[in-house]
Amino acid sequence: MCKIIYMKSDLHIVKIGGNVINDEVALTSFLKDFASIKGLKILVHGGGKKASEMAEKIGLTPRMKNGRRITDAANLEVVIMVYAGLLNKNITAKLQEQNCNAIGLSGADANSIKAHKRIVKDIDYGFAGDVDKVNDTALKVFLENSLTPVFCAITHDKNGQLLNTNADTIASEIAASLASSYNVHLVYCFEKNGVLKDINDDDSVIEDINSKSYKELKQKNIIADGMLPKLENCFYALHKGVKKIIIGNPSVIVTKDQKYTSLTV
Amino acid sequence: MCKIIYMKSDLHIVKIGGNVINDEVALTSFLKDFASIKGLKILVHGGGKKASEMAEKIGLTPRMKNGRRITDAANLEVVIMVYAGLLNKNITAKLQEQNCNAIGLSGADANSIKAHKRIVKDIDYGFAGDVDKVNDTALKVFLENSLTPVFCAITHDKNGQLLNTNADTIASEIAASLASSYNVHLVYCFEKNGVLKDINDDDSVIEDINSKSYKELKQKNIIADGMLPKLENCFYALHKGVKKIIIGNPSVIVTKDQKYTSLTV
Repeated sequence: MCKIIYMKSDLHIVKIGGNVINDEVALTSFLKDFASIKGLKILVHGGGKKASEMAEKIGLTPRMKNGRRITDAANLEVVIMVYAGLLNKNITAKLQEQNCNAIGLSGADANSIKAHKRIVKDIDYGFAGDVDKVNDTALKVFLENSLTPVFCAITHDKNGQLLNTNADTIASEIAASLASSYNVHLVYCFEKNGVLKDINDDDSVIEDINSKSYKELKQKNIIADGMLPKLENCFYALHKGVKKIIIGNPSVIVTKDQKYTSLTV
Repeated sequence: MCKIIYMKSDLHIVKIGGNVINDEVALTSFLKDFASIKGLKILVHGGGKKASEMAEKIGLTPRMKNGRRITDAANLEVVIMVYAGLLNKNITAKLQEQNCNAIGLSGADANSIKAHKRIVKDIDYGFAGDVDKVNDTALKVFLENSLTPVFCAITHDKNGQLLNTNADTIASEIAASLASSYNVHLVYCFEKNGVLKDINDDDSVIEDINSKSYKELKQKNIIADGMLPKLENCFYALHKGVKKIIIGNPSVIVTKDQKYTSLTV
């Protein structure tokens, strides 16, 4: 009997945050490294401080609650302009320069990420979107045609409304949706070397975390605040079939010489 | 002998200008009509007054010369934000609402339109881009996967630089590049009913123009000013193999009950 075994291709999904985006030199260097990753890849980028700067320039006051932006209609216009326009297209053009065939996308494009406006409980986050579904069929069309999707953190509700969505969540939702089709390597890049035991000691990286040790780290309050939603996103993706997730500084995508955090289910 | 005849598919390429974009009700109505076009289609949109409004809000003075925008670095940021961000993503989301599987694109995305910074002769237009090449391979991937490309008037130079490009030109260059693969129907929608004999009489539509009559109309100064570059773009596309071009008000894409101008080579 003949058995055909389909080997899954590797797919790297990398998320970069604001600190890289805010620094022109660091961004250019990161994009060179990202372009050098062989094979299939997807980039997800956060917003950086440019949206707040632009909002202030046009006389708006950015409002935050629990580290998340309150997106009223005027601020929504600003984040669409900055995330989906300025940042997304500049990143795409810079990747094209590096011969990486990037395609900049919001969730509205090719209906790639459908979301709904966050339901008001204690806080009204305005036009904030919680993801319903990633259109893996559309993403596969791009990947199989050697395109590299570059996602900004804007989604839509399929009823004509654009929504501001957390970029960490977008990365984990994309990873989860593609885990059955590819060997997904999900990497979260940020300004630290990984998840730290002591927030003031960049060398105190917790090198391995799994579901069990995560529970303990939470109970002991070693992992808290802004790191919690990031790790919740990670374990969501791991439970959906992503094999391994790395959290580290941007150089982790090309070298494993430095410390970083590795997450498994 | 058996001969296989490949039938070309129809492809509608529609360009809408600023006046439709500036009017929320007119835009929504137009997008419903556009979504109802059966088969393959591409939308190209201009900028409207939103970019100038935004530039003024952040303290920039928009500069024009011969009806064209002078795009310095600060104004380039604004047009990228407004054209590729705000307008392009809102149009895409509204088409998705109409079950048209739109994908918003700049020329940097999928390297779809490569341009070069306009060479300075008498006037320095700044970061204005003149088109070198439309990537018809990328466009065919989108069309053959039932996606509807929605182009804003931003291109790139493949060296990391985004450029502001005339939307009429983008429409004609896309039409020209796809004329050998599809039966291209190119439609320019604007605020008038067509090319007018008398600019003050909206009923004085010149219903048919070909290369010969165009020459005469120019000599008699009946066609002049802003209409000249539009028609130059049209005849460029016609000479590149586009069979017919229509110029008219936005309703022309769904009904031929009113007058409009039809251009042939």
